Amino acid sequence: MSHIRLSRSKDGVNFTVEDKPFIYPVDESEKYGCEDARVTFIDVKYYINFTVISEDSWSTALAVTEDFVTIERKGIIFHPENKDVAIFPEKVKGKYIALHRPNNSGFGKASIWYSESTDLLHWGNHKCIARPRDMKWESMKIGGGAPPIKTTDGWLIICHGKGDNSLYSLFCLLLDLNEPSKIVRRADTPLLTPTESFEKEGFFGNVVFTNGVVEKDGKVYVYYGASDESVGLAITDIDSLLKSF
Amino acid sequence: MSHIRLSRSKDGVNFTVEDKPFIYPVDESEKYGCEDARVTFIDVKYYINFTVISEDSWSTALAVTEDFVTIERKGIIFHPENKDVAIFPEKVKGKYIALHRPNNSGFGKASIWYSESTDLLHWGNHKCIARPRDMKWESMKIGGGAPPIKTTDGWLIICHGKGDNSLYSLFCLLLDLNEPSKIVRRADTPLLTPTESFEKEGFFGNVVFTNGVVEKDGKVYVYYGASDESVGLAITDIDSLLKSF
Repeated sequence: MSHIRLSRSKDGVNFTVEDKPFIYPVDESEKYGCEDARVTFIDVKYYINFTVISEDSWSTALAVTEDFVTIERKGIIFHPENKDVAIFPEKVKGKYIALHRPNNSGFGKASIWYSESTDLLHWGNHKCIARPRDMKWESMKIGGGAPPIKTTDGWLIICHGKGDNSLYSLFCLLLDLNEPSKIVRRADTPLLTPTESFEKEGFFGNVVFTNGVVEKDGKVYVYYGASDESVGLAITDIDSLLKSF
Repeated sequence: MSHIRLSRSKDGVNFTVEDKPFIYPVDESEKYGCEDARVTFIDVKYYINFTVISEDSWSTALAVTEDFVTIERKGIIFHPENKDVAIFPEKVKGKYIALHRPNNSGFGKASIWYSESTDLLHWGNHKCIARPRDMKWESMKIGGGAPPIKTTDGWLIICHGKGDNSLYSLFCLLLDLNEPSKIVRRADTPLLTPTESFEKEGFFGNVVFTNGVVEKDGKVYVYYGASDESVGLAITDIDSLLKSF
């Protein structure tokens, strides 16, 4: 059963993983695990969405904390089969915004969808805004990564692409500041693709996958799962990311 | 491309189908069709949810009309892959309620889910409330049918079950009046199963499937698709339905 632990750091590089789980299965909707947490700070609270897995498939739940000590559960916000939810850090035109990735089993390929909410709990106005293209690093699936960063050019999101031979890479997407269902720029090459041994070999090799991106003191820290086994860190800055398109 | 037409009747038995489509594809999210309309009357408006099919799979959209002449589109309310949405005719404890049926491709079987909304557009607090059981008429899938009817015993819903050999039948479900995520009674035998030739043979044989149930003058009119080709009518009453469990 998967669970989510806190890991603390003063410099963003050296971390201490806590001994006990922070978010772990508490009811039948999470029976097989809680994983892939994404944290969005809005006003004074941290909104943590995470994938829950049960006998009824996988979906995305929400929890809220102010102190990372106590946590309040808010239930399932995106029904099955859905994961890779990234909630924007502020409202746009009076609505909260999220990206998500419904599964496609019948036809079509798993794509990036856009949704709106009035309260972060109920979501609607779902729109498919970006689909996989016929490129070897994103041919099978694409999905949102960490919550987007607001830049002068638009909402910057580091997404993932699943390509040929189940290779997972990261790529950048820029959405319109005022109409975030509109794409301003989409990268034609990956930002990060497995090259190091810990990215190429492991529990599920050839995977880099980010859920957490932090902007601090002019730098952007990209934390990414590597081969479903360890967590890597890549450091860049907003200008470099915006020029990478 | 599927579309939805109006059909008018004065006695509920003899109908005239209109020449022109009423709801039909208008954008890329409906490219391959609009089908399976379910109508819920709330206050002074008719809320019509329907399955939309596109290159991005299938999902459920909402439209609103007061007169069945003009119609206002409200976008996708349940993202892929989801259909069989039944919206309750009134709020319960301040929230609108719907049942829906997300697809299960990975594991689990397509089941009846419960959701809440504050405005009929944004939906959350998703819960799986009823799963297929190992019975030959509901072993593969179950899903909501027409919008539920309020009775003294609870919310009465005529659902569908997909069983062995892709047989589709109808069965009754009774949900708690004040907490409609709780099941009060669930039928152990089907209410209606294909027996007539038009129910057993057709475009997709051995299928009975209801999207529309009307209570009028003490009777309950169950309109059901038969073999994905024609529409049948079965007439009963609330007492008989409540005694059928």
